[in-house]
Amino acid sequence: MPSKKSVTIGVVDTTFSSVNMGRIAIDELKKSHPRVRIIRRTVPGFKDLAVECQRLLKNKCDIALALGMVGKAPIDSQCAHEASIGIQMAKMNTNKHVIEVFVHMNEAVRKDGSLDESDFLALTEDRVRKHAHNAVWLVSNPEKLVERAGSGRRQGRKDVGSIEKR
Amino acid sequence: MPSKKSVTIGVVDTTFSSVNMGRIAIDELKKSHPRVRIIRRTVPGFKDLAVECQRLLKNKCDIALALGMVGKAPIDSQCAHEASIGIQMAKMNTNKHVIEVFVHMNEAVRKDGSLDESDFLALTEDRVRKHAHNAVWLVSNPEKLVERAGSGRRQGRKDVGSIEKR
Amino acid sequence: MPSKKSVTIGVVDTTFSSVNMGRIAIDELKKSHPRVRIIRRTVPGFKDLAVECQRLLKNKCDIALALGMVGKAPIDSQCAHEASIGIQMAKMNTNKHVIEVFVHMNEAVRKDGSLDESDFLALTEDRVRKHAHNAVWLVSNPEKLVERAGSGRRQGRKDVGSIEKR
Amino acid sequence: MPSKKSVTIGVVDTTFSSVNMGRIAIDELKKSHPRVRIIRRTVPGFKDLAVECQRLLKNKCDIALALGMVGKAPIDSQCAHEASIGIQMAKMNTNKHVIEVFVHMNEAVRKDGSLDESDFLALTEDRVRKHAHNAVWLVSNPEKLVERAGSGRRQGRKDVGSIEKR
Amino acid sequence: MPSKKSVTIGVVDTTFSSVNMGRIAIDELKKSHPRVRIIRRTVPGFKDLAVECQRLLKNKCDIALALGMVGKAPIDSQCAHEASIGIQMAKMNTNKHVIEVFVHMNEAVRKDGSLDESDFLALTEDRVRKHAHNAVWLVSNPEKLVERAGSGRRQGRKDVGSIEKR
Repeated sequence: MPSKKSVTIGVVDTTFSSVNMGRIAIDELKKSHPRVRIIRRTVPGFKDLAVECQRLLKNKCDIALALGMVGKAPIDSQCAHEASIGIQMAKMNTNKHVIEVFVHMNEAVRKDGSLDESDFLALTEDRVRKHAHNAVWLVSNPEKLVERAGSGRRQGRKDVGSIEKR
Repeated sequence: MPSKKSVTIGVVDTTFSSVNMGRIAIDELKKSHPRVRIIRRTVPGFKDLAVECQRLLKNKCDIALALGMVGKAPIDSQCAHEASIGIQMAKMNTNKHVIEVFVHMNEAVRKDGSLDESDFLALTEDRVRKHAHNAVWLVSNPEKLVERAGSGRRQGRKDVGSIEKR
Repeated sequence: MPSKKSVTIGVVDTTFSSVNMGRIAIDELKKSHPRVRIIRRTVPGFKDLAVECQRLLKNKCDIALALGMVGKAPIDSQCAHEASIGIQMAKMNTNKHVIEVFVHMNEAVRKDGSLDESDFLALTEDRVRKHAHNAVWLVSNPEKLVERAGSGRRQGRKDVGSIEKR
Repeated sequence: MPSKKSVTIGVVDTTFSSVNMGRIAIDELKKSHPRVRIIRRTVPGFKDLAVECQRLLKNKCDIALALGMVGKAPIDSQCAHEASIGIQMAKMNTNKHVIEVFVHMNEAVRKDGSLDESDFLALTEDRVRKHAHNAVWLVSNPEKLVERAGSGRRQGRKDVGSIEKR
Repeated sequence: MPSKKSVTIGVVDTTFSSVNMGRIAIDELKKSHPRVRIIRRTVPGFKDLAVECQRLLKNKCDIALALGMVGKAPIDSQCAHEASIGIQMAKMNTNKHVIEVFVHMNEAVRKDGSLDESDFLALTEDRVRKHAHNAVWLVSNPEKLVERAGSGRRQGRKDVGSIEKR
């Protein structure tokens, strides 16, 4: 499903993350959307994502993927919140989309509180790959998203589907 | 109750939602306000609504409906909060209204915590349809809203009415 | 105590509120400050107040009253928070004051959690009327406020007064 | 310790506060920094401080002191948070400092929850007076602050000092 | 590992902190990146960091380190949150990076709640020194960060490493 017009996507991830999220995004983009141009950056932590995305969007990119991993402690959630506010600012200042792709370790913990690493990896891959498609569609093929409106799409887990009138 | 002057309304919903909220809004607008022009967009999740609304408002739209569904987990509430802050920014930057139409799954859960799907659908329809009217009135017929000031209007549920002096 | 120079005040309230707060504000302004010009608007809910105030302040108003009622549920408090952030943005963007006049239903509940309607009405009236004066003073008579600095003024309830050195 | 160059400081306090914080600030500035020019304003509550500071900073002031008292209820903390976000905006928009001097009643409560008035007054005085110096130094004598870097300074209470390597 | 091109870094710390964080940052920069130019500022508390960073970035600096210490009380966390939002604004307004280097006393408390001072000092040093490198790399050697993407880097504690597919 190649994109209709030429698109430049910024891919920004972190050194904090335990998964190379940028590499997954680039793999998916190259495989499924070979004509998309990619500019990759890595920043220390997720609070640094917003301004890096803004820099890319003010320069050459049409859209950016902000890829971050959120730790298990409550302070991590507060920091993710600040990072998200920053990402909203980046979008507003550039009038372009940034898809925030955050994976929370708490999404893949066992009952004893330990991280289920293989589940976490699968979740991360699925979320990054699906949002790579969303990014291309938003810029070059927005009707793809309208077709999917209200269909309960999930990134990271299986789609939940629509609630139908009975 | 047709609107007085020509209005262009942006209708933005998500693929995340389990209800096609955009379709409901468009149905109501076409039925009750046939002269209104509609531009529809769909984005992945509710955090993407703000900048899409801003893009529409900076271009052709007089007002936008930001239609989103919020899941049941606490993290969903935090994300909705970030989405709302973004929507405030979109309004401020464009000096135009965006009506935030969010439905929270927690508004229609049974005592056992499960979702009451038919109640949730009814709630969503009612909220979207009523806010479609609010959007048209805000732009073309603001005196309609002044008439309703302080009358305890609700979208999604029945109006609660005014508190009267005894 | 008429105001010294000509002032235009925006009065913005909501259809959500169960009390016609705009009418109270206008009544007080007309009675106590008959030379003040008033522009009234009504929006659906309190999240819509900020941009309406900004629109008035960018146009003809010197100051605005943002009149909102906050429900009893925790989600109502979060929404009020978002509305307040928006109001801060409106002030910053216009470099003018917006007096946020929010009444929380939780301020007038009986021990059994039910709303004490007459107490709530009295509270709302008192808060709106006193802030109507504050609005006029801020624009036309700021020394009135300096005279009252640190005097424990309250809107809605009785003043608490100053803490004096013993 | 007179300031090196001419400085204009905005002093903004509230009618809500039970202590005349503006008077304390002005007293300290006149006594310790007699060449500093002062512009004083009073606003109703602490949510009104940000835009008043911005107005002063956009006009004649080099820096402002935002003086506010925070009540004991949880809602007061949320409001203080909104006021603080506004103050951050004021600084960013003007590229000048605003020193936020907030005293929380919860800082001076007895075990039974009642306010210890004399402790609260002492705390308020100490915080306001010390921040009056900080304001002057930030603008006219920033090396004074570099000398104190990492020294555990407190306003309101005694300094806690540095943690030294053993 | 000297930086490739000339860089000016702003180093901003506080008088509130009990550790001279600015001195540590400057020591690391001089030792490891001797050609980097440094401009140092100290402000009273961490809420003052954002605008000071913005002032430096609007003037001569390519990037800034915002160095702050966060106390143990819940109110300290809320204040840190406001400071962080301000720092996001500073980045967005200047389109440059600010590395937020905050140390929370709660990161180094013993089971009895008391501060483990030597652990806290070690944590602070490690975090400041590592982020000094990140700052230089972000501006002059961004490929250094891409090489480290997804490698679970930590500042203050040991790196946690990558999660590998098995």
